[in-house]
Amino acid sequence: MLKEIREECGIFGIYGHPEAANLTYLGLHALQHRGQESAGIVTSDGFRLYTYKDMGLVSDIFTEDVLSKLPGKNAIGHVRYSTSGSSHPKNSQPIVVTYSLGELAIAHNGNLTNAKTLREELEQNGAIFQSTTDTEVIVHLIARSREQNPIRRIVEALSMCKGAYSLLFLSPESMVAVRDPFGFRPLVMGRLGDSVVFASETCAFDLIEATFEREVEPGEVVVVSSRGIESIKPFPEVKRHAYCVFEFIYFARPDSFLFGRNVYQIRKELGKQLAREQPANADIVVAVPDSGVPAAIGYSEESGLPLELGLLRSHYVGRTFIEPQQSIRNFGVKVKLNAIREVLSGKRVVIVDDSIVRGTTSRKIVKMIRAAGAKEVHMRISSPPMCFSCYYGVDTPIREELIASSLNIDEINKYITSDTLGYLSLEGVMRAVTSYKQMHGKENFCDACFTGNYPVEIVDSEIKIRQLRLFDR
Amino acid sequence: MLKEIREECGIFGIYGHPEAANLTYLGLHALQHRGQESAGIVTSDGFRLYTYKDMGLVSDIFTEDVLSKLPGKNAIGHVRYSTSGSSHPKNSQPIVVTYSLGELAIAHNGNLTNAKTLREELEQNGAIFQSTTDTEVIVHLIARSREQNPIRRIVEALSMCKGAYSLLFLSPESMVAVRDPFGFRPLVMGRLGDSVVFASETCAFDLIEATFEREVEPGEVVVVSSRGIESIKPFPEVKRHAYCVFEFIYFARPDSFLFGRNVYQIRKELGKQLAREQPANADIVVAVPDSGVPAAIGYSEESGLPLELGLLRSHYVGRTFIEPQQSIRNFGVKVKLNAIREVLSGKRVVIVDDSIVRGTTSRKIVKMIRAAGAKEVHMRISSPPMCFSCYYGVDTPIREELIASSLNIDEINKYITSDTLGYLSLEGVMRAVTSYKQMHGKENFCDACFTGNYPVEIVDSEIKIRQLRLFDR
Amino acid sequence: MLKEIREECGIFGIYGHPEAANLTYLGLHALQHRGQESAGIVTSDGFRLYTYKDMGLVSDIFTEDVLSKLPGKNAIGHVRYSTSGSSHPKNSQPIVVTYSLGELAIAHNGNLTNAKTLREELEQNGAIFQSTTDTEVIVHLIARSREQNPIRRIVEALSMCKGAYSLLFLSPESMVAVRDPFGFRPLVMGRLGDSVVFASETCAFDLIEATFEREVEPGEVVVVSSRGIESIKPFPEVKRHAYCVFEFIYFARPDSFLFGRNVYQIRKELGKQLAREQPANADIVVAVPDSGVPAAIGYSEESGLPLELGLLRSHYVGRTFIEPQQSIRNFGVKVKLNAIREVLSGKRVVIVDDSIVRGTTSRKIVKMIRAAGAKEVHMRISSPPMCFSCYYGVDTPIREELIASSLNIDEINKYITSDTLGYLSLEGVMRAVTSYKQMHGKENFCDACFTGNYPVEIVDSEIKIRQLRLFDR
Amino acid sequence: MLKEIREECGIFGIYGHPEAANLTYLGLHALQHRGQESAGIVTSDGFRLYTYKDMGLVSDIFTEDVLSKLPGKNAIGHVRYSTSGSSHPKNSQPIVVTYSLGELAIAHNGNLTNAKTLREELEQNGAIFQSTTDTEVIVHLIARSREQNPIRRIVEALSMCKGAYSLLFLSPESMVAVRDPFGFRPLVMGRLGDSVVFASETCAFDLIEATFEREVEPGEVVVVSSRGIESIKPFPEVKRHAYCVFEFIYFARPDSFLFGRNVYQIRKELGKQLAREQPANADIVVAVPDSGVPAAIGYSEESGLPLELGLLRSHYVGRTFIEPQQSIRNFGVKVKLNAIREVLSGKRVVIVDDSIVRGTTSRKIVKMIRAAGAKEVHMRISSPPMCFSCYYGVDTPIREELIASSLNIDEINKYITSDTLGYLSLEGVMRAVTSYKQMHGKENFCDACFTGNYPVEIVDSEIKIRQLRLFDR
Repeated sequence: MLKEIREECGIFGIYGHPEAANLTYLGLHALQHRGQESAGIVTSDGFRLYTYKDMGLVSDIFTEDVLSKLPGKNAIGHVRYSTSGSSHPKNSQPIVVTYSLGELAIAHNGNLTNAKTLREELEQNGAIFQSTTDTEVIVHLIARSREQNPIRRIVEALSMCKGAYSLLFLSPESMVAVRDPFGFRPLVMGRLGDSVVFASETCAFDLIEATFEREVEPGEVVVVSSRGIESIKPFPEVKRHAYCVFEFIYFARPDSFLFGRNVYQIRKELGKQLAREQPANADIVVAVPDSGVPAAIGYSEESGLPLELGLLRSHYVGRTFIEPQQSIRNFGVKVKLNAIREVLSGKRVVIVDDSIVRGTTSRKIVKMIRAAGAKEVHMRISSPPMCFSCYYGVDTPIREELIASSLNIDEINKYITSDTLGYLSLEGVMRAVTSYKQMHGKENFCDACFTGNYPVEIVDSEIKIRQLRLFDR
Repeated sequence: MLKEIREECGIFGIYGHPEAANLTYLGLHALQHRGQESAGIVTSDGFRLYTYKDMGLVSDIFTEDVLSKLPGKNAIGHVRYSTSGSSHPKNSQPIVVTYSLGELAIAHNGNLTNAKTLREELEQNGAIFQSTTDTEVIVHLIARSREQNPIRRIVEALSMCKGAYSLLFLSPESMVAVRDPFGFRPLVMGRLGDSVVFASETCAFDLIEATFEREVEPGEVVVVSSRGIESIKPFPEVKRHAYCVFEFIYFARPDSFLFGRNVYQIRKELGKQLAREQPANADIVVAVPDSGVPAAIGYSEESGLPLELGLLRSHYVGRTFIEPQQSIRNFGVKVKLNAIREVLSGKRVVIVDDSIVRGTTSRKIVKMIRAAGAKEVHMRISSPPMCFSCYYGVDTPIREELIASSLNIDEINKYITSDTLGYLSLEGVMRAVTSYKQMHGKENFCDACFTGNYPVEIVDSEIKIRQLRLFDR
Repeated sequence: MLKEIREECGIFGIYGHPEAANLTYLGLHALQHRGQESAGIVTSDGFRLYTYKDMGLVSDIFTEDVLSKLPGKNAIGHVRYSTSGSSHPKNSQPIVVTYSLGELAIAHNGNLTNAKTLREELEQNGAIFQSTTDTEVIVHLIARSREQNPIRRIVEALSMCKGAYSLLFLSPESMVAVRDPFGFRPLVMGRLGDSVVFASETCAFDLIEATFEREVEPGEVVVVSSRGIESIKPFPEVKRHAYCVFEFIYFARPDSFLFGRNVYQIRKELGKQLAREQPANADIVVAVPDSGVPAAIGYSEESGLPLELGLLRSHYVGRTFIEPQQSIRNFGVKVKLNAIREVLSGKRVVIVDDSIVRGTTSRKIVKMIRAAGAKEVHMRISSPPMCFSCYYGVDTPIREELIASSLNIDEINKYITSDTLGYLSLEGVMRAVTSYKQMHGKENFCDACFTGNYPVEIVDSEIKIRQLRLFDR
Repeated sequence: MLKEIREECGIFGIYGHPEAANLTYLGLHALQHRGQESAGIVTSDGFRLYTYKDMGLVSDIFTEDVLSKLPGKNAIGHVRYSTSGSSHPKNSQPIVVTYSLGELAIAHNGNLTNAKTLREELEQNGAIFQSTTDTEVIVHLIARSREQNPIRRIVEALSMCKGAYSLLFLSPESMVAVRDPFGFRPLVMGRLGDSVVFASETCAFDLIEATFEREVEPGEVVVVSSRGIESIKPFPEVKRHAYCVFEFIYFARPDSFLFGRNVYQIRKELGKQLAREQPANADIVVAVPDSGVPAAIGYSEESGLPLELGLLRSHYVGRTFIEPQQSIRNFGVKVKLNAIREVLSGKRVVIVDDSIVRGTTSRKIVKMIRAAGAKEVHMRISSPPMCFSCYYGVDTPIREELIASSLNIDEINKYITSDTLGYLSLEGVMRAVTSYKQMHGKENFCDACFTGNYPVEIVDSEIKIRQLRLFDR
């Protein structure tokens, strides 16, 4: 899909490497697809922290000059597309604070479901917040803890937090990686020579030629310091995990190895499964680039229909685009995609995409393909209808805006003006996702966006969440 | 290929539309693949010209604020990747000058082969140059002409120029489109309501929903003014045309309709032809993204080997990239591409790319694929060995840097470490390019980069050309 | 003197005017001499606060565009030259926070003498500080107060603070002006039509044509809201006041009306008194521009010696100045001042300045005047030897750097290479300052920088203060 | 006066010093009063030229980083306030061009009176202009000259130019200083060790500790190269010189030594002469700062009336200032000046200024002083009524805007609302200016702004001059 759901965040950390800042910059570059709004790096030279954050892309923000001012052998970094707190510079991460035990930086991927409630309590007790992110709540809880040991402070603070968090902390002396007990968001660990590395996805390791070692396990706290690596599991155990299935469907990079499996292959398998469940009487298969390509390859292979490049994507689209006053049909889609008339004209076309969010973009794509001369348009989606909002770190719209929350498949088909519309079933998703040995069982995936079965309580009411967004500027 | 040959330039013009600047901005956006270094728009309100040029991408340069300061119903625009003159702001286009007949703006795609010789003569006669581009030579020739009629001045000036030029001129009163008699570079003409539009490629028309009408013909001068459209053919006729075949192979956008034919389909046909000429005993076909994708689809379709996404391209790579001191193997390629181990491991892989320039990138790609576990790597190129430099607007390296100018195919295969290497024959290219009715005959294409048969004399010696580049700063 | 002592801060507020931001901008411009490092304005539209702060001069920071984004009828502003906390953007004011009662902005002129001690206590209790300013301590004390009424929170917080503070608070609903019980720093109140205005000095009222009404009295809290103006005096009364005498000698603008009296006339009277106490056998009187001019006029008038423009000041000196490697004698002074040889040559010259800080600048000026041909140089200072650091908002160097803390007058005379050196006595200062009716008695002035009689205890040790400066970056 | 007449330009050059760029930067800083709009430095390392120009103040433009990119032992620099050509970046100087003999930079102080006529001829012959400055005309004439020797080219070009020019040329090998035969604008020459220095005023030498040697004489061409210093006088001799008397009255810095005499002392003498010619029955003398101060000192000394600081000037006023919508009386003056009520109240005040241009500012100053309580206001001007525009490099308004071109002294007095108004006579000016030995006779000064006696023909019609200004953008 065309970024209707904005990516969440990506985090990266490296401990004990003379080029910590440079490698973090590369790691963040590999994670850029997880957030294009702002990026930041904090380094430690063993005595103090050095910070640089800005709005924009990693390769624009971190010039040689900037990187040269981030000394030290330890670093954490963050790329962000706001899921909590607006797109304001003050909300960029890592957050760095000075509290009674000294300096601390934190990088967060995920979303707390009781952040607003905790924030209100903290403010009642005199806390002053600088941002509107839920991450700052964690920092205040740490600062107020009466524990003397900083790790115990972190554990105490996180024990009060509910929801999704993959976290990296950096103090002048140590680095701490934490993943919430449900393991919503990915967090992997690796080695580069003697250095320890952490990242949201393995593709960050590939670029810097680090070796993937293992996932940071749900509920695990990994502390890296001059004393080496220590691992503890201080949180009460939970019955199931809740790996985000949507990472497989859309978020993660196809070259990443996630929750034990390569993403591209899962996605291609989703496409094959889709071809089995939702065949189409058609001439060609066309992907909605780029996210729909792996499933389209799978659909083509399984169905035997030839794959064609019927939609071309522009990769030079900036953040905003000025629309002329004279109306251009389907403008928003048109600056990103162009349909190739010579490919589509007179054809019965299967369009493969990974999901439908509001339906407006899909509708524009269908119209664009038909305007290019397609005789029939058969939309195939490699996931089930998305009916529920995510509160665990994915910036889905509020429920009312999700087309599948109010329309059934026939109605959606009518709305997006396709000839036929077919979704992959949840069973089909789970079959693809669990079809390889050593994979997690389907009960360990979070499918709340499709089913509404939220594994962790949403403490903050929807009203609170929206208020905060309004308050934000 | 990964931009080893930098694109040339793209030009766009619109006459008689209240949103001239906005539509030119969109047109340039659609032509962004032809030059990402600088962009500029000049508008006319009938009395004077308004200019804005800057280094960078179209969508970064032209904010709403900037566009609001470009009034008038006529506009021309330019995107540039230097082929003559260095990447200095002063070399960005359109060039705007004030001379005895008033103001004049010029946007140029192509390259003159006698620019340096003309420039020396002009300087001997007191001309002062502001840039190092060959385009400025045209402007000086116009300013020095004794003709009173501005169109005759343009014709007189161009009669002295040799080489490749697709040009748009804008004066306060009129717009002039010119294509050199050989027609090296594309230039198309269309309509948007009552407005006349010009562009390097038809994809610019698609975005603004203009209708493609026809090519500006080789040797044609089209004048658009309040008196309507006039067309003249003032230059001596030439025996053949010289459409750049490399536009089909690499430059043009797959969705453009070029020299009478859709680019994607030509490219796919090149891939099919390649599969016929250069089959491989392999398991899968993998494209070098993005330019190799259409040929790979063709190769897969013709060979029956499945197409797989074995190389993933990052689209967030900025202009420069800071390499860490610790050596990362094949760094330059690695920040742009990642090989998917799970796809490639244990496989015999056909890699399809459009061309090999210096060989260094291809070598890195082969190594990367092998490092990801491929059992065999068979490189297939959808064009013949590139042995000669282009002097007609394509920024190929000097001949000595072209690997095929000094090594034969076996030696190249050895250098890039592939198991086998196969190029498409020139005959194969011409068969694909001319395989559709209404297409030009193969004698009308310029294939100088493969054969060294230069259709237009190179007046400036290679030494002069290199000197100018050195002089530049 | 040439800004060896950096000015402190200036604050301005206006309540109930449709052009609140514009007038605050003008008010800050008139107060620019009190701080050139950063400036900020916060406005309120009755519902929320709008902030803009930046490094630089008021007229550079606040463009029309910036001002248009600061809506509302109430505003406070601040110009700053750091006296506490380094010159870092995060330390610029007004500080704006969100706490349990909503939004609050604060602008501070002065310096707390127990800020570091309070900060340590707050951090022990979990407070997270964003800046290194003492002003943020006040904000945290307010946020932690258990009082429900915001004014009572402010009073409770300030009751814990020792030292100098003239403060303006802005909440969405009201504005609060506070001056510490000793009244170290000035704070005046006036009217512009129906609007209430506050400023550090009356010159800010002159520019916007507001009428000066009265000083905010030491220990007074003035609350302006939709209920009108309320004044309370909630702090325990103190036996004396402690108006900063150095405001008269150097800081305040000559056109301001301060502590009941025009500054220029006080300064001229200091010069007259100086001529009486420290006559000189000389030909001409020359001022160290600009701050020495009024005293030089007084000295000339009283002594009968003609005033000449012997030193010319450049007003284009930017913040930093690049010194060439080839040594230029007295470079730092020379880029700011030039001696006019034709005026000074062969003359016995009285140089009038307001104070000597480290002695290095005075030494350079004496040498420069002698190099221009002066026969004799008689330095006359319109204040007593400065022997002690200020902890109440003036950025004097640490004591060891003050030349008069270790050398006596003869030794200073020798060091700065003048023929004679004469300081005005403290009695002379007090006579000038109190020589007009309605003036405060001399016991109500703080003369700690001359005498070491600090009216308010310095709780933070010197070590703490220096540490904080070191910590800062 | 308050910059109603904008300064012209300042130029500086140094040949043969390892810190050429740094010293030029300092020299330009000392000449900043001659132009605050843009500044530029061009250096030569013997092989090529290096350029940096920007809008703004010298100390803002030339950072350490910028200066480090200007290598070489020779440099020229320029500060500008447009007298010809608008305040557009393209008009900033030095102008650097490449022509048939190589690179050449030029810095110009003055104004040609036949520039537009020459420009039209050049354009007719095919010249393309990049700026709207008259300086570019000189460059084109040089480029078109058929002389082979570059110095002879310069001489030939300047022989065709009429008007005022003090020029510095820099080629990779040599530096050339030229002053027009009438010597309108100053140009001095000095030494710094073995290096040769040139500057508009001697104050630039003082700062870098260079020694003033002599003026570049009217009509002289000084060539500095590896062959040493050569001086020629190639232009036909003229009967008289035409030193700009207004340099003494207003432009030059008081510490400069100009046309053989110190400026401050001339200005003070003008004040004394004014007191003799135009006495006033008054209590105090007040200067309009800063330019009126020297004359006010002279007036006070001669009249015996005490000098008081009745008007205070703000030195933090930026280029533009946003006026609030609510009317502030005399806003434009008020942001720059404040009247001190306590000084002026009840007094009969003599206000001394150097000139009256349009009268509007003087009117505002009189009103401001009266509003501050002055009983009587006697305006005294240390120069004659300014009735004519300058075409020799001073940016006076067109004649119609000069109040003295249409009103007599009584009418001006009435308009500016003073009680009495007295101008210094032309004889009085000349007496002061020529009152010292070794000074030039009065016939050698240009007084065209007072008398309309233009020493050099104005070839370009007024209409042409205005057209060019309108054309400009």
